[in-house]
Amino acid sequence: MSIKNLLIEMKNMSELMVDLAYSAVLFNSIDAAEEVLALENTVNAMNYEIKKESLVAARTYEDAEKLTALLEIAEAAESMANAAKDLADLVIKGIKPHPVFKMVMEESDKMIARISVVDESDLANKTLGELLLVNRTGMRVIAIRRGESWIYGPDKNTMILANDILLLKGTDEGAELLRKLATAACSLEDIPEELDDED
Amino acid sequence: MSIKNLLIEMKNMSELMVDLAYSAVLFNSIDAAEEVLALENTVNAMNYEIKKESLVAARTYEDAEKLTALLEIAEAAESMANAAKDLADLVIKGIKPHPVFKMVMEESDKMIARISVVDESDLANKTLGELLLVNRTGMRVIAIRRGESWIYGPDKNTMILANDILLLKGTDEGAELLRKLATAACSLEDIPEELDDED
Repeated sequence: MSIKNLLIEMKNMSELMVDLAYSAVLFNSIDAAEEVLALENTVNAMNYEIKKESLVAARTYEDAEKLTALLEIAEAAESMANAAKDLADLVIKGIKPHPVFKMVMEESDKMIARISVVDESDLANKTLGELLLVNRTGMRVIAIRRGESWIYGPDKNTMILANDILLLKGTDEGAELLRKLATAACSLEDIPEELDDED
Repeated sequence: MSIKNLLIEMKNMSELMVDLAYSAVLFNSIDAAEEVLALENTVNAMNYEIKKESLVAARTYEDAEKLTALLEIAEAAESMANAAKDLADLVIKGIKPHPVFKMVMEESDKMIARISVVDESDLANKTLGELLLVNRTGMRVIAIRRGESWIYGPDKNTMILANDILLLKGTDEGAELLRKLATAACSLEDIPEELDDED
């Protein structure tokens, strides 16, 4: 992999790890926490690879200076990955979150929700491209837990299946709407394709 | 301020700082970089305040354990703020980003765009609530540079004015649409209120 692709992957992965770690503490989820630790190893390996590639690539002091600025993306990603790991470690150690943790997560700009999809839900057997969840609810799917495995950074072609557990980021109101859809308490037709609210 | 409110503020601010720092490097913007450094001081002061409050609040070992899990939010925010500061420092030091930096930022899941609003733009003198930019373009306004000052975490009541510089996060295609709106190359009516694409 080129330095460029490694950096893109590392940046995306570290951002996902932060979301996943917050949700691991929030829902006291050991498997999400373990996933964060596994991803941290991958990020570390990528950082090592990027440093190695950069040392080979730098020929002049000018190269070196430019590469320094590039490597800061890797450093920023590494810092975020470490912060995520520290959060995930709490869950592994069995430390339960303070009640205020939940309140902070719910009242911050972007909250994280974990929602299971029932068989009869309108979400089941549709792709994210068909569902237009961002438009309908303001919620973005960050990861899907399916059986024992995880799907990260799903795209418009990713299909939601019954019994999937969705990790989503968005607003309080959006999470409420999505929960209704996922539990078949309402259908897609009940929700217009556009939100009536910027936030 | 209560620990809860301090933590909410700190979490929001650190997430904004990361976006702002990436955009400072990307657009070689010294004022955005200086803003990151100023915010870092605020985050440090808040972290100190939170630690002080927690020490006073903890009466028993059980309290202390619960507070530890709470303080991890502050630690995670602090780590992200530090990563942002390191990025911003590059700009202050006059180090120009490697050409690959731009490519990485553009090709990662969420790209950052900086767009100026012209007088004739349909965006001018409308609130974010009226504009429905997230629905129309998939782009979220993270900050607005107005004259010498910044507006962070704008909400649906925030009005966009001519000559504002918007910092937005979203996709490549969304940024293209928004640039057309901001330069009055197209009007709001040209863009439906819903995206035809989840991503």
